[in-house]
Amino acid sequence: MLAASVGGDVFASPRTKQIVAAIEAVPSSKGTLLVITNYTGDCLHFGLAAEKSKANGNPCRMLICGDDVSIGKKSGSLVGRRGLAAQIGVLKILGAAAAQGLSLDQLYDLGTAVNAQIVSIAATLDHCHVPGRTEHGALDENVIEIGTGPHNEPGYKKLSPAPSAAGLVKTILKYLLDETDPARGYVKFHPGDETVLLISNFGGMSNLELGGLVDEVLQQLLDDWKIQPVRVYSGCLETSLNAPAFSVSVINISNIAANTPFSVQQLKQFLDLKTDTAWEAVAGSQARRRPRAAQLVQSPVGQRRVVADAKDLKVNPVLLEKMLRGAAQALIAAEPNLTKWDTIMGDGDCGLTLETGAKALLEAVDKRRLAAKGSVIEVLNELEDIVESKMGGTLGGILGIFFVSLRTAVEENIALSVTQGPVAVWSTALSIALHHLGQYTPAKVGDRTVMDTLIPFADAMKNTKSFEKGVAAAVQGAENTKKLKARLGRATYVGVGEGTKELPPDPGAWGAMVAIKGLHSAL
Amino acid sequence: MLAASVGGDVFASPRTKQIVAAIEAVPSSKGTLLVITNYTGDCLHFGLAAEKSKANGNPCRMLICGDDVSIGKKSGSLVGRRGLAAQIGVLKILGAAAAQGLSLDQLYDLGTAVNAQIVSIAATLDHCHVPGRTEHGALDENVIEIGTGPHNEPGYKKLSPAPSAAGLVKTILKYLLDETDPARGYVKFHPGDETVLLISNFGGMSNLELGGLVDEVLQQLLDDWKIQPVRVYSGCLETSLNAPAFSVSVINISNIAANTPFSVQQLKQFLDLKTDTAWEAVAGSQARRRPRAAQLVQSPVGQRRVVADAKDLKVNPVLLEKMLRGAAQALIAAEPNLTKWDTIMGDGDCGLTLETGAKALLEAVDKRRLAAKGSVIEVLNELEDIVESKMGGTLGGILGIFFVSLRTAVEENIALSVTQGPVAVWSTALSIALHHLGQYTPAKVGDRTVMDTLIPFADAMKNTKSFEKGVAAAVQGAENTKKLKARLGRATYVGVGEGTKELPPDPGAWGAMVAIKGLHSAL
Repeated sequence: MLAASVGGDVFASPRTKQIVAAIEAVPSSKGTLLVITNYTGDCLHFGLAAEKSKANGNPCRMLICGDDVSIGKKSGSLVGRRGLAAQIGVLKILGAAAAQGLSLDQLYDLGTAVNAQIVSIAATLDHCHVPGRTEHGALDENVIEIGTGPHNEPGYKKLSPAPSAAGLVKTILKYLLDETDPARGYVKFHPGDETVLLISNFGGMSNLELGGLVDEVLQQLLDDWKIQPVRVYSGCLETSLNAPAFSVSVINISNIAANTPFSVQQLKQFLDLKTDTAWEAVAGSQARRRPRAAQLVQSPVGQRRVVADAKDLKVNPVLLEKMLRGAAQALIAAEPNLTKWDTIMGDGDCGLTLETGAKALLEAVDKRRLAAKGSVIEVLNELEDIVESKMGGTLGGILGIFFVSLRTAVEENIALSVTQGPVAVWSTALSIALHHLGQYTPAKVGDRTVMDTLIPFADAMKNTKSFEKGVAAAVQGAENTKKLKARLGRATYVGVGEGTKELPPDPGAWGAMVAIKGLHSAL
Repeated sequence: MLAASVGGDVFASPRTKQIVAAIEAVPSSKGTLLVITNYTGDCLHFGLAAEKSKANGNPCRMLICGDDVSIGKKSGSLVGRRGLAAQIGVLKILGAAAAQGLSLDQLYDLGTAVNAQIVSIAATLDHCHVPGRTEHGALDENVIEIGTGPHNEPGYKKLSPAPSAAGLVKTILKYLLDETDPARGYVKFHPGDETVLLISNFGGMSNLELGGLVDEVLQQLLDDWKIQPVRVYSGCLETSLNAPAFSVSVINISNIAANTPFSVQQLKQFLDLKTDTAWEAVAGSQARRRPRAAQLVQSPVGQRRVVADAKDLKVNPVLLEKMLRGAAQALIAAEPNLTKWDTIMGDGDCGLTLETGAKALLEAVDKRRLAAKGSVIEVLNELEDIVESKMGGTLGGILGIFFVSLRTAVEENIALSVTQGPVAVWSTALSIALHHLGQYTPAKVGDRTVMDTLIPFADAMKNTKSFEKGVAAAVQGAENTKKLKARLGRATYVGVGEGTKELPPDPGAWGAMVAIKGLHSAL
């Protein structure tokens, strides 16, 4: 891809001597092409190095790349367009073309033609941190700046309040592609032109954000501009240390082919030629894009089992509904505390996970009249479905196994309701379900998990046959977690050696207790 | 590499239904191997999905990867080691082995053997930002936490004040490799064992930092542990959104070969098999490392031209030294302001660039008695050398061309010193040098660059033959830049449409003026 690269100090052009050293380190009988981005310091130092190299008898040319459309045609008339990451596309094409034996002048002409068919613009959420510098003019919280450069340069325009991702992409594409903009319109796009999309992470955007950005850009290119790029490259292509920022570039391959001896097919082959550089990480990664709807693999639709009345535990529908509402509303009310505690000790998802489940339960009660038949099996089926569909995380996993096991155990012990009453069914089924759960988690009482509530609750139900005493045991179990050091789950890794000071309660245990109390409150 | 991957919500395990959907989306007559990292939620959901898949007649096994040594053997006895990024190495080996047709059980056994020969630990400079959550327990400024997980979990230990890069690497390698540590020593290393180094960027480290880290780790592995990895992988392998953090893993390939039917050579072939994943970006990138000293390409050593006395302008050595000191000290004193102004309007390097040059000049005066012969040509040679060697950036480029041209012009017009005196030489040479510089930069007076000082200075010298009036013109030129909108250089991109409010002076113009005034102050 490159015979050599030469870097300066952070944000400064390399010095002339360094450039001369690089040229001399990779001599070629065909000469040397210096491909630089359009910054004044680089132009000066590489220009002087090229002069010195030529004076030493080495054919040397300098190709200046500039692709930023934020510099309008008028204000940039002297300077030319600033160089952004699409230079990497020029380098890829020239590298492959050079490997085919093109002459120095042919390469220079091809590079010039490629550069002329690129439009780019950058957007910045904040500046990068330059090692050794304390001050840096950070952007305000709710501001996105567009038309920025990779060296913390102020941009063309500040957008405040920060637009949505879709709104930002809309703005960016208009700057890139609106041919009627008198200050821009650097490249013409005709129907059917083959194009390349290149999105560069300045360094501080997460892969998650970058993936979302690429998808949004592709969707809007298709919807608003009828453009479907034949190649899509995204990643840390030309970076600005850790800046949370990016640039979007579109290259019109058809126009390049029209202005050079190379066909669209040849230009794509240049881009596709394998190298041993980081380019391969992004090459072809989205050459064929699935439509947005097809990107989601649908979950298999399971048939809801129909349970014979004889296997079902039937209760008063009005009371059942009140109990379910009581549990769900108690969980929703507890969410802020659960999230707070889980942020201290775990990964912070416990409160929202339980709230999601609780809201889904309320919806089933409201919209599908879940409690109307007074069927306990239907409720347990629904809970199993909610947990499997809506609740991830450790707690979702434990509760999923718990509800599956509980439903099966209720069905298998339904006979007890006739001989000993419904509480006997519950206490037996709870014990069986917890025993089955034990095959998946080694957690016992004292391990600071949801089991600190569930086990005392089930034990008390079994021993006393009283829901009220079960609830009291659950409350005591959840309270006890405040004194426990974690031995399982993420909380294990915390507080090692921090002694005996009181901790927040385990949010999983507390959530289970809140739900159980909520059920009971309706009685 | 993988037939499918299934992701949950941010920081939560995927739900059982999602996992089942993934298994069913890529059916195989040989069955399905689920390779997961050791987090409780994942173990539960993938475990339940595996049970459901098996119940449907699909052979399915679950391999749990855990490589974090920060979880000591005792406190992790129930949980096992936490999964960090070296899982990616397991996936790479298993993917290639699966392509060779190994059975499900053979793959499971190989994966288990690989996982057992990995040691990993993470270090965190700050937490990542989780979309939609406002609070996140950020680390204090001067703290590095080690033994952290990828979900903002608190770590094993906080290091405060933050150690140097070398100190941090030293600590990390001790946790990984010290076999005498009773809580750790998970993997034994024998002399000659072939190893793999895998460094994962959690997402928020710049490429620059990551490169420095990899180099430091390799150097200390060699120096302190006699380990020279046969493969080195680094990059965003398993990320934590935008967290400025990383993990270091060492895999003992020789031990894996000893415990499986596969040779070291075969295991390396598994790692080297090309895929169409991002793995290729890091594969082989540092398979052969150059020693640290050989990583720097030396600049060519140019011969200093000897100039005949007849071509030289000789002045009073004492006065010459005072003038040079005056200019250098004035520039050093001006650095804070120049940096501040350049941070507002440019890329912030102007002040330090000039200070670097000024300090190099002082050193030449002090250590090599630059002024001792009173030779102006020697001083200009030295300035050319300093600028080319020490000063990058736009300003370095402009000054480089300026001093080369000035020296040549002084030599060529030395005869004037006899007929019209030294000031005539200077004023003529300055005009010629600026004219030559004009071939490299289009900047004129009013463009808010260093030329706003140099051109008025040279013009006044030429017209008045008075250094004093030249200095006054330079001061006026630099002052004028406070009223100018930028038309060239990085400052072009700023302040578009911001009207007529007063700007800071152009730091390049101001720096040149300061130096000229400094020269004059010695008279």
